[in-house]
Amino acid sequence: MIQSEKKARIPVVQRILSANDQAAEENRRILEEHGIVAFNLMASPGAGKTTLIMATIEALKARQRIGVVEGDVASQVDADRIATTGAPVVQINTGGACHLDAPTVNGAFDELPLGELDMVFVENVGNLICPVSFDLGQTYRVALLSVPEGDDKPYKYPAIFEAVDVVVITKADLLGPLDFDLDAFLELMEGVNPTAPVFALSAETGEGMEDWLAWVEERVLPLEG
Amino acid sequence: MIQSEKKARIPVVQRILSANDQAAEENRRILEEHGIVAFNLMASPGAGKTTLIMATIEALKARQRIGVVEGDVASQVDADRIATTGAPVVQINTGGACHLDAPTVNGAFDELPLGELDMVFVENVGNLICPVSFDLGQTYRVALLSVPEGDDKPYKYPAIFEAVDVVVITKADLLGPLDFDLDAFLELMEGVNPTAPVFALSAETGEGMEDWLAWVEERVLPLEG
Repeated sequence: MIQSEKKARIPVVQRILSANDQAAEENRRILEEHGIVAFNLMASPGAGKTTLIMATIEALKARQRIGVVEGDVASQVDADRIATTGAPVVQINTGGACHLDAPTVNGAFDELPLGELDMVFVENVGNLICPVSFDLGQTYRVALLSVPEGDDKPYKYPAIFEAVDVVVITKADLLGPLDFDLDAFLELMEGVNPTAPVFALSAETGEGMEDWLAWVEERVLPLEG
Repeated sequence: MIQSEKKARIPVVQRILSANDQAAEENRRILEEHGIVAFNLMASPGAGKTTLIMATIEALKARQRIGVVEGDVASQVDADRIATTGAPVVQINTGGACHLDAPTVNGAFDELPLGELDMVFVENVGNLICPVSFDLGQTYRVALLSVPEGDDKPYKYPAIFEAVDVVVITKADLLGPLDFDLDAFLELMEGVNPTAPVFALSAETGEGMEDWLAWVEERVLPLEG
């Protein structure tokens, strides 16, 4: 028996990226290349994602060039609303899927004038569970929770509230009439995600919008040169 | 070459049931065996599913024996609330899944005193998309939509509104203060599901509850003998 010269087998460990994660990396690269900051807005149906995006565009459009990617199971009613602000918008219909994914957002980026934009808002499908599992390559993840949904949601849907960079309580004009305990909510957030700022606002009345707008503008990448 | 006697090959076509559909059939059999009518309640987070179930139990418990299966991603806060009514309740935590499935509900049935019940309410996970794809073996499927979510939802989330036997508009006490066009909603429903009755009610104030309660009681299987 001849003893062969042994060569040490060195295991090569590398993270195999899923198709979604690969596309997310590509999206991140595209955003960096164009100096764009992108926000992935996630929330239940009817939480006010479109209304917040529209109010943010109206408030910032004199200074910031904003594009929008609209995600819905069906229809383009939200994109039609966004278009009234004059911002470039692309509608994605998932045809049943409960979340956006990075390859589809990549396709949407192709339809936006990225060279002329400072920020992009990506409105995910109305769903408090699925979207958080899919990295879109966004710069920041935003969870919206509307006052009528109730203050116990970080307890019942922890994954999304744990993962995001910021939380926006929408329809804050209903904090008086409805039974939503803001202190209880903040305490729950302290438990699941103590570093994420929480803004309470009403995009319709304008109350509380300043802090959110300031946070958004601070995220915009500084101009080069 | 010897010609063998040919036997005609008769193709046997049968529907191969998925694991979920098999369990759903089993659930249907169990419900029938016990003479129980089961309602699968589907809606967004915070639409008021638990509150409607509680108000229905309170209104009917003198005449109907009601059990509840509570579905949530995490926590048992809803089951704790239901338990205050005195109704037997089982909590299911999906641990991340965006819907209940029939095998899990089957396990929950094991924990309920089925021999002593007339009806079971199954509260699905808060989600307007995923739950409709999973038959639980329920007798009726119910979609709830809360007024703050907006009147355009059958257009944006058609699958659930097409599939259900009845639609309940919850938080109808907010129909005045909020901008929800009930006629526009009914017109959309006429397009996607013209036979499903639509009830508008507030489980908190009690307005509109009678029609819903009457519909529910009409569904209860008549006593034998």
